[in-house]
Amino acid sequence: MAPDQNHLIQQSQDLPRVLVLHEQTIFDDLRRFHSHKFHFILLPSTDTTVDQFLNAHNYDSSSICAVVCSYVRVTADVLRHLPSLGLLVTPSAGTNHIDLPECCRRGIKVANIGTVFSEDVADFAVCMLIDLMRKISAGDRFMRGRRNSLAAPCHFPPGSKVRGKRVGIVGLGSIGTEISRRLEALGCIISYNSRTKKSKVPYTYYPNVVDLATSCDVLIISCSLNDQTRHIISREVMLALGKEGVIVNVGRGAVIDEKELVKCLVKGEIGGAGLDVFEDEPNVPKELFDLDNVVLSPHSSALTSESVRGVIEVLGQNLEAFFSNKPLITPVL
Amino acid sequence: MAPDQNHLIQQSQDLPRVLVLHEQTIFDDLRRFHSHKFHFILLPSTDTTVDQFLNAHNYDSSSICAVVCSYVRVTADVLRHLPSLGLLVTPSAGTNHIDLPECCRRGIKVANIGTVFSEDVADFAVCMLIDLMRKISAGDRFMRGRRNSLAAPCHFPPGSKVRGKRVGIVGLGSIGTEISRRLEALGCIISYNSRTKKSKVPYTYYPNVVDLATSCDVLIISCSLNDQTRHIISREVMLALGKEGVIVNVGRGAVIDEKELVKCLVKGEIGGAGLDVFEDEPNVPKELFDLDNVVLSPHSSALTSESVRGVIEVLGQNLEAFFSNKPLITPVL
Repeated sequence: MAPDQNHLIQQSQDLPRVLVLHEQTIFDDLRRFHSHKFHFILLPSTDTTVDQFLNAHNYDSSSICAVVCSYVRVTADVLRHLPSLGLLVTPSAGTNHIDLPECCRRGIKVANIGTVFSEDVADFAVCMLIDLMRKISAGDRFMRGRRNSLAAPCHFPPGSKVRGKRVGIVGLGSIGTEISRRLEALGCIISYNSRTKKSKVPYTYYPNVVDLATSCDVLIISCSLNDQTRHIISREVMLALGKEGVIVNVGRGAVIDEKELVKCLVKGEIGGAGLDVFEDEPNVPKELFDLDNVVLSPHSSALTSESVRGVIEVLGQNLEAFFSNKPLITPVL
Repeated sequence: MAPDQNHLIQQSQDLPRVLVLHEQTIFDDLRRFHSHKFHFILLPSTDTTVDQFLNAHNYDSSSICAVVCSYVRVTADVLRHLPSLGLLVTPSAGTNHIDLPECCRRGIKVANIGTVFSEDVADFAVCMLIDLMRKISAGDRFMRGRRNSLAAPCHFPPGSKVRGKRVGIVGLGSIGTEISRRLEALGCIISYNSRTKKSKVPYTYYPNVVDLATSCDVLIISCSLNDQTRHIISREVMLALGKEGVIVNVGRGAVIDEKELVKCLVKGEIGGAGLDVFEDEPNVPKELFDLDNVVLSPHSSALTSESVRGVIEVLGQNLEAFFSNKPLITPVL
């Protein structure tokens, strides 16, 4: 080994250690852009627990002060094995995979990705809405299915006009607000549900989701998942939305009671669904694959080349703030 | 037959005769809403010519003063067999299927559907744009393809952010203007090409489509088809748009040189295409069926339950105006 390579490795060992849970791509990108400031360690996406991994590689668990955790569950048990942990950063808007009360108890700071994803998720949600109303994915399947009967007359049923439709947004945070801007340009009538009424928002507020669904043609789910929102989209809400009603979910799978959603879709009790998230990812209820009034997506509503770069930047800024005792850029806790 | 039924039929025979070319659904709807004012006659969608049909059913060709023609070609030869024709109404925005110079020479008035479709087509175009940038149809195919390997890790490549993309609109008429409103809400940078520069429009005008393509990430085609626009989207334009460039066509198929489009897509010389229209409908170039960066649609960008009702209304209003010697509602000629 050349002396200056040796020197570089030695230098890297002296940098603050950051444990990255499972996410190979984020680990690679973090190293590419921030390896001069931090020593990143990847816990690969296997069944190994944090303590087994640290033991196996002779890392002193007390040397880990910061963790980057993607969609891996960070439970009290995980935290117990990281006695010096001071910061958890997640490359997501949602933090439902993190035991926040336990972090709070242990004085661990938590940062998410802030609003990096908001516009991309909003574009995606609105596209799913138009797709479902106007049968665009279904039309594409219809066309590809016609490949052997092209000369035959081509009858495809009309969709539903977007303008004038009543759209209820569940969760009017940063993503929900971006969604509402796009819906205004489409001429939709917007209302919303959230924990509290927003004073500066001109849309009708419904404190109860059943009432919101009763007054809407479409529901867009853009709230975070927590004890208050788990299964908030119940069978009752879906029946209130009705046979022509459409649901788009770019929040978290478990905000909807997925079993009931599948039943409602199969029985035609609601009109359609655009689903970027599921209760037990990467699993998807098999009944959905045969439905033509459903658009399925691999949790990619936030995924653009540009947002991926933005994520690495915000992760780096939070790590830097933490290790220099400055306020986090996008704090959750 | 009951006497008053007989009376009704007699009355219907006395009403102005309107020949409907091929469109069964439009014929049915016209009869449903306007049969008290007009006597509609359907020329079914077969190979029969207008004169053969009229002879076979003992209709005096000079009794036909108005024709509703959908996508059937209305040539000088068709017009020759309708000596008393005074009005052609098409339930479409485009009139490329009608020999307009011959209508002009014969003093036949022509009406299209006006702006009934504009918002629906604009919604569709913008949805196709987001779909292509964010791989939404492709993601849906990806998900449905995973039905037998659900537990496997799910890797899907990131799409491209919509905000900040440079979108060139070819044809800034009623549809193009609605498209531009939606693109503004998405944060796109808009420029356009049209016959002439619009004085009240804030977007950059390119008199040449190659220059427009060179300056854009996306082209949306929303112009009408005529001698000036046929194959205006040439190989040169597509190469100017480039490898990452995306084309959405909600105008007419022949505005794009379709053979060259297929070559560019297959070779990866452009990034993707959203196609609601084709040069030789209902035929579609078979090469397109295997491409993942293409969204195909059965000429349904204008098709909603609401727009279908609007069409019947505007058709009726034009017929009524014509037969009472008033100005047409949505005149083309």
